[in-house]
Amino acid sequence: MTNKSPLQKPLPFFMPLEGVTFGTAQTNSRYRNRDDLLLVYFDSPASVGGVFTSNQCPGIPVTWCRECLSHPHNFARALLVNAGNANVLTGKEGKEAASLCAQKISKIFDIPIESIFLGSTGVIGEAFPTNSILKAILPAKLSLSPMNWEKAARAIMTTDTFPKGAVGCAYIGNTKVKIQGFVKGSGMIAPNMATMLAYIFTDATLPSSILQQIISEAAEESFNAITVDSDTSTSDMALCFALNKAQNPQPKNLDDPILSDFRRKIREITTELALLVLKDGEGVSRLMHVKVVEASSRDDAKKIAFSIANSPLVKTALAGADPNWGRIAMAIGKSGVKIDFQHVRISFCGIDVAAAGECLSYDESFLQKKMRTVEVPIVVSLGNGQAEAEVWGCDLTKTYIDINAAYRS
Amino acid sequence: MTNKSPLQKPLPFFMPLEGVTFGTAQTNSRYRNRDDLLLVYFDSPASVGGVFTSNQCPGIPVTWCRECLSHPHNFARALLVNAGNANVLTGKEGKEAASLCAQKISKIFDIPIESIFLGSTGVIGEAFPTNSILKAILPAKLSLSPMNWEKAARAIMTTDTFPKGAVGCAYIGNTKVKIQGFVKGSGMIAPNMATMLAYIFTDATLPSSILQQIISEAAEESFNAITVDSDTSTSDMALCFALNKAQNPQPKNLDDPILSDFRRKIREITTELALLVLKDGEGVSRLMHVKVVEASSRDDAKKIAFSIANSPLVKTALAGADPNWGRIAMAIGKSGVKIDFQHVRISFCGIDVAAAGECLSYDESFLQKKMRTVEVPIVVSLGNGQAEAEVWGCDLTKTYIDINAAYRS
Repeated sequence: MTNKSPLQKPLPFFMPLEGVTFGTAQTNSRYRNRDDLLLVYFDSPASVGGVFTSNQCPGIPVTWCRECLSHPHNFARALLVNAGNANVLTGKEGKEAASLCAQKISKIFDIPIESIFLGSTGVIGEAFPTNSILKAILPAKLSLSPMNWEKAARAIMTTDTFPKGAVGCAYIGNTKVKIQGFVKGSGMIAPNMATMLAYIFTDATLPSSILQQIISEAAEESFNAITVDSDTSTSDMALCFALNKAQNPQPKNLDDPILSDFRRKIREITTELALLVLKDGEGVSRLMHVKVVEASSRDDAKKIAFSIANSPLVKTALAGADPNWGRIAMAIGKSGVKIDFQHVRISFCGIDVAAAGECLSYDESFLQKKMRTVEVPIVVSLGNGQAEAEVWGCDLTKTYIDINAAYRS
Repeated sequence: MTNKSPLQKPLPFFMPLEGVTFGTAQTNSRYRNRDDLLLVYFDSPASVGGVFTSNQCPGIPVTWCRECLSHPHNFARALLVNAGNANVLTGKEGKEAASLCAQKISKIFDIPIESIFLGSTGVIGEAFPTNSILKAILPAKLSLSPMNWEKAARAIMTTDTFPKGAVGCAYIGNTKVKIQGFVKGSGMIAPNMATMLAYIFTDATLPSSILQQIISEAAEESFNAITVDSDTSTSDMALCFALNKAQNPQPKNLDDPILSDFRRKIREITTELALLVLKDGEGVSRLMHVKVVEASSRDDAKKIAFSIANSPLVKTALAGADPNWGRIAMAIGKSGVKIDFQHVRISFCGIDVAAAGECLSYDESFLQKKMRTVEVPIVVSLGNGQAEAEVWGCDLTKTYIDINAAYRS
């Protein structure tokens, strides 16, 4: 077992939300003596929006959920998540397994099959433990309770070293609504035993179409703005469920001002969850917060920010708390974005280190001390426009190699 | 000092080539007690072709050489390379330094300034040791000798753990010509102390225009088909010089059949040099040779091959000799290339491990043993066309972190 991440955070205090209950159970397949199956049940139709991995080799649950979402009357009544086997590249058997699980839940609760969402995380390409999971569905149902949030957050863990959650409130018009969620992941991917799954719940009353837009825009600045190792999971998903219990006024569309606080809060919570994934990154000791400003487009800014956050040389410099701006310049230059280095300014921890194509004078040992912190801000100003983007990355340490070079067995 | 790479190769036996001499000297700037300046002198105009880094923040020698090559009557009479300072992001002073060095050589030999090529490798953004280098040019001239190939290969080393060269012969028509070269590099980049510089010499008589095409096509399959850490140096360059001493027949154009053997041989030598760089990769213990076949275009094939070779998760699996094909599937899927996994076949060391979207049955412990070798072949067949590409990568080990997380001082 890997040691707990030094950047771990305790779980927040979850409140029960009317209309949703959580049950967990042991499948005794990959893990022993721990719950590794999560069943979520909605007592009435919940609205739902979701975003998924861009990997061209998506897992079966990803394809399954996409189909549920594209159903004309899409809503959710249940969610089943197992940890230990990702159900990716498992062929025809894997597809049948997903279908059998959904059928069983459909029958137990008498709910439509297209209202049952699935998530799987764990090893790729190995036979899916269908029977063990089918057998554990009933025990999970029997344990359904509105209080089981922490159990739920723990049941979906794989290589995670701590459970992760976030809570908050927002106003829709004058109505206060709750938002709570949990996430698992400790690497954008480790096909052995990881992926990123996020589930967010709100008692707000909102149509799925609006919820879809809200989770999509929030993901762009949270789950899609973090990188552990530049590798993209085959199973990543973030689903947002609205329980439709609050008596909030109904927005006309996404841009209705009554939605602005809710949209901001969802963004804050998804960012908090995304950063928790990063803080549990394999071997992580320090985060970087890369902001690229004065770019000619947001795409350019994000491309450069990721080129920096994904560079092994930048990541190893961060591990050494080294303000090695030459590596930042290199990463900007290799991003493929056309820029003029005469207008570029680079700063670490608020201290400018390079501008106009050359080094500035600064106190290097002072800056090294400042960089020995949990989150190092790196700002790159391109002097080329008004657009900007920010992403979060982490350092690359020997522990990452330890975790990932080991055999799967 | 880092230990020698376990994959090191001895230098080949270089023959003198008529028309070119090498001199080396100590600048006593970054390094002590070793030659770190190389002067190459051509007694008559040499034809020249070159390829350079795609980094948008090129070093001053890169810009300088590009200008020499774009001169209407481009030819080479001298080359000056220093190790220890890359002359990148050094502002106006760096540009002046380059100009002063070229002026001094122009004066000493009475040759046109645009016939003098420059190369620099080492730290980025630090003041260039202009005076030390200017002072060492005369001692380097005094040591000029046709025998100094090994000294030359050693003088341009930085974090390299061994000197690297390759030799060969080719026919142009019925005339046998020699080709010899050396290279430095031990990471696609480490802006602290590394970059890739390759210099290739032939006694063949060829115009610069043909030479340019030959080195460009060769680089595409050699220097541009290797990756240590996915980072792209600001100073990479490969120059090919034809001394115009051999009495070979003149080709009409690149496709003239009398050139085919020479073109093949240049490709072989550049590939040998490129693989030597990889074999000196920081912390390397094992190479991967990734071949993507049955792609719909060469671009697609190369994109997927690099997505595999650059994936930290594939690289760490390689370090553990783990036939973790799930990570290969993930890397194919994240490349952005549209593919149908139903037609994909993946093999390690000639053994098929996955096809048609699922795992094949194979003897995993036997395959793990087979993978404990210097170069692991990985073949991905997309079942989607006739195009293919191959690239070479290396594993990611703790030593890479050791080398790159250390302070620059």
